[in-house]
Amino acid sequence: MISRQQLIDQIKLKKSFLCVGLDPDMAKIPRFLLEYPDPIFEFNKRIIDATRDLCIAYKPNSAFYEALGIKGLESLAATWKYLPKDCLNIIDAKRGDIGNTSDMYAKAFFDEAASGLGFDAVTVAPYMGHDSVLPYLNYPGKWVIILALTSSAGSKDFQYLTTENGLLFEAVIKTAVTWAGPDRLMFVVGATKGSEFTDIRKYAPDNFLLVPGVGAQGGSLEEVCKYGMTKDCGLIVNSSRSIIYASTGEDFADAARAEALKIQLQMKEELEKAGII
Amino acid sequence: MISRQQLIDQIKLKKSFLCVGLDPDMAKIPRFLLEYPDPIFEFNKRIIDATRDLCIAYKPNSAFYEALGIKGLESLAATWKYLPKDCLNIIDAKRGDIGNTSDMYAKAFFDEAASGLGFDAVTVAPYMGHDSVLPYLNYPGKWVIILALTSSAGSKDFQYLTTENGLLFEAVIKTAVTWAGPDRLMFVVGATKGSEFTDIRKYAPDNFLLVPGVGAQGGSLEEVCKYGMTKDCGLIVNSSRSIIYASTGEDFADAARAEALKIQLQMKEELEKAGII
Repeated sequence: MISRQQLIDQIKLKKSFLCVGLDPDMAKIPRFLLEYPDPIFEFNKRIIDATRDLCIAYKPNSAFYEALGIKGLESLAATWKYLPKDCLNIIDAKRGDIGNTSDMYAKAFFDEAASGLGFDAVTVAPYMGHDSVLPYLNYPGKWVIILALTSSAGSKDFQYLTTENGLLFEAVIKTAVTWAGPDRLMFVVGATKGSEFTDIRKYAPDNFLLVPGVGAQGGSLEEVCKYGMTKDCGLIVNSSRSIIYASTGEDFADAARAEALKIQLQMKEELEKAGII
Repeated sequence: MISRQQLIDQIKLKKSFLCVGLDPDMAKIPRFLLEYPDPIFEFNKRIIDATRDLCIAYKPNSAFYEALGIKGLESLAATWKYLPKDCLNIIDAKRGDIGNTSDMYAKAFFDEAASGLGFDAVTVAPYMGHDSVLPYLNYPGKWVIILALTSSAGSKDFQYLTTENGLLFEAVIKTAVTWAGPDRLMFVVGATKGSEFTDIRKYAPDNFLLVPGVGAQGGSLEEVCKYGMTKDCGLIVNSSRSIIYASTGEDFADAARAEALKIQLQMKEELEKAGII
C-alpha cells in the first residue's frame, strides 16, 4: 500500500516518475529464459532487479498473463510477490462491470487472501459508470485509475465525441472526480497531444495522471511535463516495450536498465525545471 | 464454435433463447458442495446438467472465477470443457485494451492451446474503440459481443450522454456495425426500458442482442420481445442469479431447472406469437 504522500516522497527520492510496464510475451523474451521453470517470472524478476531504483511504479498488464492460462496466473502471482513494496504496484486490467461483479474483480486484484494478488491500484474502464468503480474504493488506501484518454487509434472512435458535458473523456473526468478524491483516484491520459493536458488539468488539478505511450506509442516526455505536471509532479509516465525489449539477447536486463536510466535522467531534469526537487 | 444459422436452429429446436449466467459465489453456493475438491465446478456441472435442454447459451462471468485466484481459473477451465458444444459458450469478460494487448485477451479466451479456454464469444467494452475489438475477429467464426446499453444504475453516467452521433450507446452501435457483420457481432443491451430496443433495431436490425437483467436486474421479457425480436429471434436473454440461486439447499439444481423451465415456457410463447416456431 502506498499513499499519495508516499508516492510524492518516492518521486523526490528517486528523482523519477517512471512506471515500468511488465507486459512479457513468450514470443519476445530472450530464448535462454525458456529453460527456466517459469520464464515469465524469471524475465520480470531480472527487469525488476535492473530498474527498481529508477522507477516508482510497476504495471503488469493482466492480458499478457491471462493469455498463458493458469501458468500465466502463477507467473503474475510470483511477480506481484516480488514487486518492491516502496513502488506503486498497478495491475493494468481495465475491468468494468456492474456492482456485484466489480466486487469480485476488487477481490481478484486487491484481496491477497482470496486470490493471491494484492495490488495497490487497478485500471478501470468507465463505460458502465459509478457502480463499476465504487467497489474498489471499499478497500482502504487502494487506488482506482480510470481510463479517460487513451493513446491508440481507437481512442478517436468514442473518446472525442462531443457531449453536453464536454468531450466524452472530459465528461468521464468531470464525473469521476465527484466519486473520490485525488488520494484515491487517478486517470489514464494518453500522451499523443500534450496540449490536451491543459484542459484535463482544469477538471483534475490534483489527480495523478498515468501516462502511457511515452516510448513505443510515441509521446514526448517534455510536452507531457510542460502541460501536465503539478507542484506535486502529478504524473506517472509508463514505458513498457521500449524498456523491457530494449534488447532480446542475454544482456536484456542491462539494456532495460540503460533505457530506464535514460528516461529517469530526463525526468530528473523535468522535476528540477519545475522546482520539485 | 456455433454459427449464426446454428444459433437460430438451436433456438427453434429448443424453443428457447435463454442464456444461463454461471456466476458462482463461494459465499452463496449450497454448503454441502464445499466438501468437493472443486465446489465451483461441481455447482456449475449440476446447473448445466439441469438446464442444458432449456437454454441455448451459457455465460460464465470471468470476475467470479478471478476472485478465487488460480483455483478459480481451474474451475473456469473445467466448466468451459464441460459446457455443451451445441450451446453458445460466452465468456463475460468485458475486456478492452489497445490492439497488441487485445491480441493477448483473444488468446486468453479463444485459443485453447495457449490458455486452456476456447470460448465461442467474448463480451468487450467499447471505450477504447476499434483496436480493442478487431483482434478477436481474427479468430474465424468467433463472436464479439460489445457493451452498448447496460442495465445497472451506472449506465446513466455516460451511456446516455448526447453526442453528435446520437446517444453514446447509439453511437457505439452505429460505429461498431461498420467493423463486422451480424454473423460475428452482437451487442449487450440492458432490458430496463423495452422501448429503447426500437431505436437500437434501427441501427442493428439483424444483430443478436444479449439482454441481461431479465430476473434479478428486473426487466420484462414480454417488453423485450415486443420491441427487440426479429424474424430470426435476434435475442439471447440472460438470467444468472434468479436461476442459479433459485434455492440454496440440496435441491438447488432442481430449483434452477424449475426456474429455467418457467422462463423457457414464456420464451416458447413469445416465439410462437412472433411466428418463429
